[in-house]
Amino acid sequence: MTDVFVVGTDMIRFGRFPTRTVPDLGAEAALLALADAGLSIKSVQAVYCGSFGEAGSMIGQRVLREIGQIAVPVVNCSNACATGATAFREAWMAIKAGAYDIVLALGVEQMGKGMLVSPGAGPIPTEGLLGSDTLPSLFAHVGMEHSRKYGTTFEQFAKVSVKNHHHSTMNPKAMYQIETPLEDVMGAEMISYPNTKLMCSVNVDGSAAAVLCSEKKARELGLMSRAVRVRASALSSDPYGSRNAAMPDFNAVTRIAADGAYDGAGLGPEAIDLVELHDCFATAEIVHYENLRLCGDGEGGRMIDEGTTSLGGRIPVNVSGGLLSKGHPLGATGIANICEIATHLRGEAGRRQVEGARIGMTHVAGHVVDMGSACAVHILEKV
Amino acid sequence: MTDVFVVGTDMIRFGRFPTRTVPDLGAEAALLALADAGLSIKSVQAVYCGSFGEAGSMIGQRVLREIGQIAVPVVNCSNACATGATAFREAWMAIKAGAYDIVLALGVEQMGKGMLVSPGAGPIPTEGLLGSDTLPSLFAHVGMEHSRKYGTTFEQFAKVSVKNHHHSTMNPKAMYQIETPLEDVMGAEMISYPNTKLMCSVNVDGSAAAVLCSEKKARELGLMSRAVRVRASALSSDPYGSRNAAMPDFNAVTRIAADGAYDGAGLGPEAIDLVELHDCFATAEIVHYENLRLCGDGEGGRMIDEGTTSLGGRIPVNVSGGLLSKGHPLGATGIANICEIATHLRGEAGRRQVEGARIGMTHVAGHVVDMGSACAVHILEKV
Repeated sequence: MTDVFVVGTDMIRFGRFPTRTVPDLGAEAALLALADAGLSIKSVQAVYCGSFGEAGSMIGQRVLREIGQIAVPVVNCSNACATGATAFREAWMAIKAGAYDIVLALGVEQMGKGMLVSPGAGPIPTEGLLGSDTLPSLFAHVGMEHSRKYGTTFEQFAKVSVKNHHHSTMNPKAMYQIETPLEDVMGAEMISYPNTKLMCSVNVDGSAAAVLCSEKKARELGLMSRAVRVRASALSSDPYGSRNAAMPDFNAVTRIAADGAYDGAGLGPEAIDLVELHDCFATAEIVHYENLRLCGDGEGGRMIDEGTTSLGGRIPVNVSGGLLSKGHPLGATGIANICEIATHLRGEAGRRQVEGARIGMTHVAGHVVDMGSACAVHILEKV
Repeated sequence: MTDVFVVGTDMIRFGRFPTRTVPDLGAEAALLALADAGLSIKSVQAVYCGSFGEAGSMIGQRVLREIGQIAVPVVNCSNACATGATAFREAWMAIKAGAYDIVLALGVEQMGKGMLVSPGAGPIPTEGLLGSDTLPSLFAHVGMEHSRKYGTTFEQFAKVSVKNHHHSTMNPKAMYQIETPLEDVMGAEMISYPNTKLMCSVNVDGSAAAVLCSEKKARELGLMSRAVRVRASALSSDPYGSRNAAMPDFNAVTRIAADGAYDGAGLGPEAIDLVELHDCFATAEIVHYENLRLCGDGEGGRMIDEGTTSLGGRIPVNVSGGLLSKGHPLGATGIANICEIATHLRGEAGRRQVEGARIGMTHVAGHVVDMGSACAVHILEKV
């Protein structure tokens, strides 16, 4: 079974582009990633495209209409916030299966003024209208539960956002590139305690792409010098639950995927040099430190206090700025994470470079209230 | 690289179920296929789910909520009328990649009163409102073009529908199980010449599922006696075209996928014993005889006149009743085709059994006007 490598990857600067089309946004990232690999669309043997909002409208084919229709297999994937990572994983799988040597994985989303419920999802249940099972309230609950069990403070949660906004000042692809001092974060409009408005991910449009390649072809094309190995890919869904449970088990879904990725890679958390994880809310980042086994249960708050996950710390997390500041265009996020990690493993991250990074992890976790969850974890390795 | 086998497959009787939910419809087919394999949901290591209308609403996870949440990877696929076949193909790919031994592929659709444009597709273009680029008018054009080039007659097109309706009288899973004499077909309401209402596929709800298994695991579990080998899988998209072309090249998309499948299987059309092809309109079946190389160009009309594609003929086509009479629930159709072919290869098709069937082909072709195409061809083989 061949190893699979990322030989090109890039993303657009996340932002708000109400006058552009979704295929146009997707095409830009695809062309950037192909240029990064030094390949043309004509080399691509299959396309996996992820878009949550455009899941049912042939988005992969529409992107190809922009950049060159090449008759290749196009698979449109959808998995809530794990949509882009799922497309990436299926592209990896297709090369593992020996079906292709060069595959394009693409994620794109136009969030516009908000997309809380996906098309086809039907009417919002009463609980949604009352706000008791919206994602902001559920991730507030996740934080409060952590506070109750481990004494994690509002300030510790807020520091996550300060850190990620600071990181994003060094990322030209991030939506926001400004410092947000602790008092600003804590003093911002309260959305659902303990998450203020500056502790919620940013609703942006965006796209990201990666060109995946078999080992043989990457060597043949002379692409190994900047290649990044996909060392493991894991995907999980809800482990159990009643049909009427409004609240998914956010922790279990991530733990299952993380354990799968560690098993697949044959290594443990101590080997990971940097992580891009799903900070959809500041509270989520703290609990995911623990769910991804970056620290023991209850130690998440201390990780933030001690700067362990800041750039320069032992294991920098969300050096890109994360969903909190780089932005979170659902279908694009999973591949943007891959792009960020690959950039560090190549030593091309400029001012935000994690020095000596050899192994990185990406994590996305999608939860649609009253529907289901998907969590994807990938481990990438410098060649 | 392991061979991949279908070790269980089934479908619900297609029909109209306005009071049921999509997850409920999907769960029924999944449980039927698992029962056919003699396995429980707990054996399943990954789920690939196809639904075009529910592409963006975690349909795979919602089906698992009905039958047992098992934390496994769930991938939701979408590809117009090739949606179910794409889910099947990705399940096949996952086993080929060595990632899993037992994978469930599922297709489900609730068409309701009609779903001409998918969610997220945006406003219908002017041409659509005028009717000049709706699928009925485009497939009328396909027929007229065939008539112009080869002299194919209205009666020949109509005979396709007579044949498929006759076949469906022997299929307890078909929506309609009644004979439709030639005069009824030709005398029915004209939708878009030469296709009358009885020459258009039936808008129904439905679901179908297949359990795929690696060779090693199938032998270990004693499942080989009723197993069917997936000998080839091919998927294509639009080969070329301008952004403003309303009409996709229906023929080229299918020819590319068919050639890919023949190449993959290492055999030619003469080896195929029966076919389930995409008779979304009666005109489509005639042109697809040629696109799938079942006959030479221009010979499609003669195939119908001579009964070559009727049950008992040299190469029976759409013995299930096809989309014209069994019905066409978009996301389910691709896997229902697999189910039909597998049933014949196992010798379990009862009154409609194609005697001595050893190799069968399935074909679905999805075209969304002004968006793009997807065509999937699979070749299955008796063990």
